[in-house]
Amino acid sequence: MSDRRPLLLLSNDDGVDAKGIGELMQVLRPMADLVVMAPDGPRSGASCAITSEHPLHYQLVRKEPGLTVYRCNGTPVDCVKLALHVLEDRLPDMVIGGINHGDNSSVNVHYSGTMGVVIEGCLKGIPSVGFSLCNHDPNADFTPCLPYVEAIVRKVLEKGLPAGTCLNVNFPDVTELKGIRVCRQTKGTWRSEFVRADHPRGGQYFWLTGRYENHEPDNEQTDHWALDNGYAAITPTQIDMTAYGLMKELEGWSV
Amino acid sequence: MSDRRPLLLLSNDDGVDAKGIGELMQVLRPMADLVVMAPDGPRSGASCAITSEHPLHYQLVRKEPGLTVYRCNGTPVDCVKLALHVLEDRLPDMVIGGINHGDNSSVNVHYSGTMGVVIEGCLKGIPSVGFSLCNHDPNADFTPCLPYVEAIVRKVLEKGLPAGTCLNVNFPDVTELKGIRVCRQTKGTWRSEFVRADHPRGGQYFWLTGRYENHEPDNEQTDHWALDNGYAAITPTQIDMTAYGLMKELEGWSV
Repeated sequence: MSDRRPLLLLSNDDGVDAKGIGELMQVLRPMADLVVMAPDGPRSGASCAITSEHPLHYQLVRKEPGLTVYRCNGTPVDCVKLALHVLEDRLPDMVIGGINHGDNSSVNVHYSGTMGVVIEGCLKGIPSVGFSLCNHDPNADFTPCLPYVEAIVRKVLEKGLPAGTCLNVNFPDVTELKGIRVCRQTKGTWRSEFVRADHPRGGQYFWLTGRYENHEPDNEQTDHWALDNGYAAITPTQIDMTAYGLMKELEGWSV
Repeated sequence: MSDRRPLLLLSNDDGVDAKGIGELMQVLRPMADLVVMAPDGPRSGASCAITSEHPLHYQLVRKEPGLTVYRCNGTPVDCVKLALHVLEDRLPDMVIGGINHGDNSSVNVHYSGTMGVVIEGCLKGIPSVGFSLCNHDPNADFTPCLPYVEAIVRKVLEKGLPAGTCLNVNFPDVTELKGIRVCRQTKGTWRSEFVRADHPRGGQYFWLTGRYENHEPDNEQTDHWALDNGYAAITPTQIDMTAYGLMKELEGWSV
């Protein structure tokens, strides 16, 4: 790191006005300069989606010493891309997503807009971390997470992260954390995903909902186990999705 | 497989009317019953996005013996989820995404709605394959790909795929393919991503565009190399994104 204060780029998928990103700003402001570029409304479940069919724009919301906040009409990934474009020559020292209102452990890493922010930062070669709390309430209490958030950000600023890797950090919704565990992504899936309703003008429509089915509830190495047992879960995540173990078998196929 | 003809679920991110999914239907119809649930318009770059903020609906477009086509107002992943809900008790033998109008190799796997379809199928425990052609033209010529598509689908129906893995198959835009190579995901990133324009009523807006930067252009094991050299690239892909190599180091951090 240079003599300058570190520069952190913050975004989320709950929108610029969400409590979670506000808490993130507050806890990180003493240690770094912050640029926030976040969606102008909720983008939960935006994954790594990008916007190519219509144009993007952003507006300055707030500018104070050490803090600049923009809102953007795009997805979480669009926000990161646009912020890097706006910052031009100065690359942020970290990209941080969150604090998300809701669980992004296990297979949720694929659907999460918060982790979209993080994966995009990682793809750009910047150490990137996502923070999520297992509570969807707009007024969720993030207090127990905040010392962990601060400590993890300090550690990543000090140590960096290997190329192609990032962190997915999830907090259980408890008043007192038992500690933190390094985990792997839990195997599981979503079931019974729709609630059907009749449209007043005929036909039916569907709300996406569902029940998470954990395929390995007793495995203590998994992020879901950590959360179920009162620990923060830190799941190192990589952008290389190649299934190396399958390459040899496929080479044996005569296609 | 049972005595019944196999059942394939098809979707894409270019929309139900795109040429690519039409070609897919045509080539696969002789070998299987098809259910198509595809977006009602373009959803390029939709990644694994899901729709939770507004309700979903779908309409029957066409029903013939062995072919049922629905269009849906949601994302590619919503389409897969909704199709599985509609099919209820019968799980498809495969989920197939594409044929996409555009390259989904390398880091594009993260942004791709076609691969969103495939990852969702894989998360549901169904052998899943995505096909993409490196040509964005709505009238792109898919003819050279079709024998490969047919052969790969036959092979996957015969052999299955290990749990948690799926295939990302990309075709170069050539009239004659040199063959097929089993590859890994190329390391690379997108640069210079925006074109700025003045809004007629003041302010500026941005179109997402960009130039792909290949970090290992000479590596013959990568999917991008295969495509650059006239081969179809088959990249086995996994849904476990855990960076196992980083777990030990993180455990040494005192957070």
